[in-house]
Amino acid sequence: MKKEITIYDIAANVGLSPTTVSRALSNHPRVHETTRKRIMDAAKSLGYQSNIFASSLRKRKSKSIGVIVPRLNSPFQSSVLAGMEKIATQSGYNLIISQSMESLDKEISNTAIMYNSRVDGLLVSKAGTTDDIGHFQPFFKKEIPVLFFDRAPENNHCTGVVINNTQAIYDATEHLIKQGCKRIVHALGNLQINVYADRLKGYKYALMDHGFVFNSENVISIELDEEAGERIVKKILKMHPRPDGLLVSNDTSAASCLMALKKRGIRVPQDIAIVGFNNDLISRMVEPHLSTVNYPSYHMGEVAMKNLINHLDDEHEEILQKTNTITLRSELIIRDSSKRHPDPI
Amino acid sequence: MKKEITIYDIAANVGLSPTTVSRALSNHPRVHETTRKRIMDAAKSLGYQSNIFASSLRKRKSKSIGVIVPRLNSPFQSSVLAGMEKIATQSGYNLIISQSMESLDKEISNTAIMYNSRVDGLLVSKAGTTDDIGHFQPFFKKEIPVLFFDRAPENNHCTGVVINNTQAIYDATEHLIKQGCKRIVHALGNLQINVYADRLKGYKYALMDHGFVFNSENVISIELDEEAGERIVKKILKMHPRPDGLLVSNDTSAASCLMALKKRGIRVPQDIAIVGFNNDLISRMVEPHLSTVNYPSYHMGEVAMKNLINHLDDEHEEILQKTNTITLRSELIIRDSSKRHPDPI
Repeated sequence: MKKEITIYDIAANVGLSPTTVSRALSNHPRVHETTRKRIMDAAKSLGYQSNIFASSLRKRKSKSIGVIVPRLNSPFQSSVLAGMEKIATQSGYNLIISQSMESLDKEISNTAIMYNSRVDGLLVSKAGTTDDIGHFQPFFKKEIPVLFFDRAPENNHCTGVVINNTQAIYDATEHLIKQGCKRIVHALGNLQINVYADRLKGYKYALMDHGFVFNSENVISIELDEEAGERIVKKILKMHPRPDGLLVSNDTSAASCLMALKKRGIRVPQDIAIVGFNNDLISRMVEPHLSTVNYPSYHMGEVAMKNLINHLDDEHEEILQKTNTITLRSELIIRDSSKRHPDPI
Repeated sequence: MKKEITIYDIAANVGLSPTTVSRALSNHPRVHETTRKRIMDAAKSLGYQSNIFASSLRKRKSKSIGVIVPRLNSPFQSSVLAGMEKIATQSGYNLIISQSMESLDKEISNTAIMYNSRVDGLLVSKAGTTDDIGHFQPFFKKEIPVLFFDRAPENNHCTGVVINNTQAIYDATEHLIKQGCKRIVHALGNLQINVYADRLKGYKYALMDHGFVFNSENVISIELDEEAGERIVKKILKMHPRPDGLLVSNDTSAASCLMALKKRGIRVPQDIAIVGFNNDLISRMVEPHLSTVNYPSYHMGEVAMKNLINHLDDEHEEILQKTNTITLRSELIIRDSSKRHPDPI
């Protein structure tokens, strides 16, 4: 890599003092517009990487917004990002995105990179298992807005855009109960992640409200990837009595369970009824189509970005600070994978 | 947003001259280690956003790598990124990612943001319809490596990591011909994108080599999204004679075609045989399972990142410059959606 271009190189190039160059780059009123233009052109052609581009100093804006997600490798996050990108583009902002891979350490370095990239705001879906948000302190100190989505830390003063995960799984569990299921297994991710802990609550509450006893053996905490189906189905088939209902916390894994059951000649929904989560494309392509919870991911992206940009553009900066949680509507979609009666519900 | 912290603020905070602070931040040997430490601590606690962090100045590295893709909203790109992230993490690099949304203008602004974020290298899958790479000039000038993947511009001196798209579709077309298909439709994306232009060549060559006449009516250039199936199938059903083979340039759209055909009672593969592209999860979940081209997307991410990092870490920087194209192996996977004979091929 070549050496860094400095204001001294620009000064030498245009034949002016470093002080004048520095002033021109920081839009000092003393520098004449034609001089400033000459210096800016030289800076550009030499490949000067300003720490603060003159225009962003003027407006105090880089016109870029950072997004940190646990993993990009999911239809859910892709859809959230598409919603964010749409709103950002409309408002003239660019996104820079990074993944924490569920690691707090990586989230910390990503946060530092975003800070030094001078993003105007940050949208975060938290990694893994902690509510610790100390690494966002530099943003808070400098009053650069940070907004959480999907996975928001609890007990803090940040705004979060979320769905009611407890209610969503409550509804799904109740639906399976009404379909006559007597033993419902709930397969979900790491329970130290709030989202899953909240879903587990919904499952427990629905069982309780319908007179069932909660049995921790019916909870399978597992990585919800493409191969999850085989692992979940193997566990289920060892259970006595055999479960007749299965709630899986994402559609990819629910579809993978469906494949694993069909491969073994187990009928869905007659033998085991399945409900997934997210309403991903795959839920409408497998057969039978999967019942699922419609997670408004695209809309979540739009709402999170809209709120952040409104905050950035608005004079009334306190609006975001006074908003704690924006809860979006999710809903149960009933399809053939869980319909055991001709006229359900 | 609060005002920017400058070296003057740090100087006032520690009670030293701005010159000393500036020297300390840029690791000047004249500054005593304890003084430097004191200044660095103050810089950190005040929230100073250095343009070049002292450590990166020392090593001339930000330890971050920029990735620009057309869209994140595809299983293919998610998988490429997962491969990149794995290698980057192993080598202590962080990724910052942005999407061009197929717009050259957006790619240009993303490139500028990456440049000012001081990435150590850039991995790009080109937007849309142009081979223009003028906007990467600042990187070339400063000898920051730029490596292309999947969609590489032609006629330039950059390294590209690609597959042989022409051969891949040649093989798929030949397979359908051997299955007895007489009228094969090829549905693919914008033909101004090299990847699709190359695939069309493979389709034409295979037809020619097997004595078929190419007919441009059999080429459907269309946005390959989730809804593409309905649009493609409507077109196909108006054709006389009705096509009996269908090559679709990604699996999402191929699966969507399969759904649209089944909905109308058209049998796959007996009436129409289908081959997709990418070997996405969905190809193995729909019924019948989709024949497809295995695009080694995860491996492509690994290879692209590995080559970039080797270049960054290596003393022999010319290796990457001397490599023009790295072509990865792709292969046809034959499944039930195109098997019309008990013993195919």
